[in-house]
Amino acid sequence: MAGTTKSEPSAAERAIARASEIMRQSTLREVLALASRPGVLSFAVGLPGQSLFPVEGLSRAAAELFATDRQSLQYGIPYPPLKAQIVELMRLRGVTCRPEQVFLTSGSQQGMHLFARLLLVPGGRVMFEDTVYDGMPMAVKRLEPEILAIPTDLNEGIDADAVERHLAAGPAPAFLYLITDGHNPLGVSLDEAKRRRLAALARQHRMPILEDDAYGFLYYEASPAPPLRAHEDEWVFYLGSFSKILAPGLRSGWIVAPEELMPMLAALKHAADLDTPSFSQRMISTFLASGELPGHMARLRAAYGAQRDALLAALDRRLAGAVRWNRPRAGMFVWVELPERIDTAQLVRPAIEEEKVAFSPGAAFAVRGSHHADHCLRLAFAHLTPEEIETGVERLARVIERALG
Amino acid sequence: MAGTTKSEPSAAERAIARASEIMRQSTLREVLALASRPGVLSFAVGLPGQSLFPVEGLSRAAAELFATDRQSLQYGIPYPPLKAQIVELMRLRGVTCRPEQVFLTSGSQQGMHLFARLLLVPGGRVMFEDTVYDGMPMAVKRLEPEILAIPTDLNEGIDADAVERHLAAGPAPAFLYLITDGHNPLGVSLDEAKRRRLAALARQHRMPILEDDAYGFLYYEASPAPPLRAHEDEWVFYLGSFSKILAPGLRSGWIVAPEELMPMLAALKHAADLDTPSFSQRMISTFLASGELPGHMARLRAAYGAQRDALLAALDRRLAGAVRWNRPRAGMFVWVELPERIDTAQLVRPAIEEEKVAFSPGAAFAVRGSHHADHCLRLAFAHLTPEEIETGVERLARVIERALG
Repeated sequence: MAGTTKSEPSAAERAIARASEIMRQSTLREVLALASRPGVLSFAVGLPGQSLFPVEGLSRAAAELFATDRQSLQYGIPYPPLKAQIVELMRLRGVTCRPEQVFLTSGSQQGMHLFARLLLVPGGRVMFEDTVYDGMPMAVKRLEPEILAIPTDLNEGIDADAVERHLAAGPAPAFLYLITDGHNPLGVSLDEAKRRRLAALARQHRMPILEDDAYGFLYYEASPAPPLRAHEDEWVFYLGSFSKILAPGLRSGWIVAPEELMPMLAALKHAADLDTPSFSQRMISTFLASGELPGHMARLRAAYGAQRDALLAALDRRLAGAVRWNRPRAGMFVWVELPERIDTAQLVRPAIEEEKVAFSPGAAFAVRGSHHADHCLRLAFAHLTPEEIETGVERLARVIERALG
Repeated sequence: MAGTTKSEPSAAERAIARASEIMRQSTLREVLALASRPGVLSFAVGLPGQSLFPVEGLSRAAAELFATDRQSLQYGIPYPPLKAQIVELMRLRGVTCRPEQVFLTSGSQQGMHLFARLLLVPGGRVMFEDTVYDGMPMAVKRLEPEILAIPTDLNEGIDADAVERHLAAGPAPAFLYLITDGHNPLGVSLDEAKRRRLAALARQHRMPILEDDAYGFLYYEASPAPPLRAHEDEWVFYLGSFSKILAPGLRSGWIVAPEELMPMLAALKHAADLDTPSFSQRMISTFLASGELPGHMARLRAAYGAQRDALLAALDRRLAGAVRWNRPRAGMFVWVELPERIDTAQLVRPAIEEEKVAFSPGAAFAVRGSHHADHCLRLAFAHLTPEEIETGVERLARVIERALG
């Protein structure tokens, strides 16, 4: 954008230059583009299984709206029946809440972004696990915060001792973000004692925990313990999502938070995009009213559970000894650790080009450009059939075996 | 949120307190709640006419997606066919652009918010008309900018001399926001000479103009002159919307901006809400592909034009002499000026409670809490029938006559 009359950059030019320095597109999105080439079996992106979308039920819901409810196409306030239905859904997760504590979002990424803008001042401090879903750092990036990184791993998850040490040593950060069940990318679910302890720390230090529960309904063994929000209703702010249990293309999620925050969340949301699509809200509400969701979620658990098992069996058959991984009890991801000398980011392109298989390199989820996860990779399994998973692991094993030499 | 162990407020508590100071909900939203009472004829909110939504066409489009396109429910990249269709739509407005310059948004409010975050640093400066659509100040509020207020009026619109004086006197602000046709709330459309002059100023001072064209397709006399973007493709960033020409409940709009800004807009959008709903994008694209949009827009122009005429005739019959108003050539709003001693905000509640009629008080659109529009009010006419408009003006006239004493 060449200037014409002045030599100094204008305010807009300076802001654009700064934004372009700090807002680089995430590595994960770049991988996505490569991984979508035809013929590539991609474990790279956390897509829900498209063949499982409840198309018939949603189609009936849409037809009903078109026939009877023109307000579904109009501007509108957050749809009250959907809030009441979310209260019922939360009950299935062991959480008691009221419709006045439910806030509707355009997907849970928006929930993260609204909380970032509510809780964080420019240059403030936030606390993340050192391996973290990349959408959360993206949501705070423009505010250039100091990030406190807490160790975490694929077996136990976030290190609660480290959280406690940080909080004892200095002022609490603006918030801590975590995923309780089926962690993205680590696959881990927290044990119940740790849930209670983290909830207590949030209360003790008046530090909000943003609890991302996108995967809590997708469990493959015993029903998981309730989320942190069940233990703490004042300092745990819960993020729910219809993307993984219904369909991401509707962009609908929710927040459960203290009622006194609702006017501020509403003002921040108004500033960001006015309303969540009325049509999505009412289509989801009509679908939920049909009573089909519990059966649908049971089908998802059966299918994804079988896909997880196929992935674990294939890894065991082809890569046992060479690499480590965990057995996720929930969610859509298996985390794989290679020997430390391997940099998985270097393997992405040859994997796609030579073996037609894709994955997300560990570096995509490492906070602050840290290198601790460079030798790791994430496998997303929800959108592939067991047969595709077997073929994919076969291809991946060849890539890894070559890298191991 | 009472603390339990410490006496000083935590970082989160301080941020929440600050946010609650600066993010008060807009006056307009408060009026909306009152105005939606049953039996109230409301001119208060800029709703498109619900009875005119192309329900059959959209319903066919949705049915086709459910039958053939499961990706419409999946995460996805911005839908390329829709970008190409928007290029065609822009051509109808006299604007030449390429798909690489089109960015899809969750409604044009999101476009404003993305540009605010791209162009404005905390505490920076922006330039608004002194009577302005309240969504734009909302979009920048959290960044606490200095606002340069430019005089504007219901006959000529923004004072280009004042813009030029400001730019000559000091560094250019981060951006200028304006509406070229069918201004919200003033109803005014800019003449062609002023369009050219403003576009030239943007270029000369390398100051982006955010051109909000939500109403440019809704004209009731000769087809309006092309927007500023037709004269300047580097420093005019155009905001388009499907809300007024199709349906706001889908939350879909677009930006036309220089191609080099697209990666940064994409990163900021990813941080905010990942994707615009795939389902909305593809439903709109399928509807546009049916070729029904031009005919639909012609029906909107005929209906809204008749409603505008009914409103102007009723005002003329009941309030000529007592108040002033303009004759909008485009859009959905008539601006009414009462004698300066009347504060219209004081009339809202009695109007609703005693006469069952609602409007938006001028103060809702005054920047920086200025009082220059306290004696004005905005009438939105797109969602009311000519008969409702006549009855509404009858009621409004009684309110105003009582106020005039």
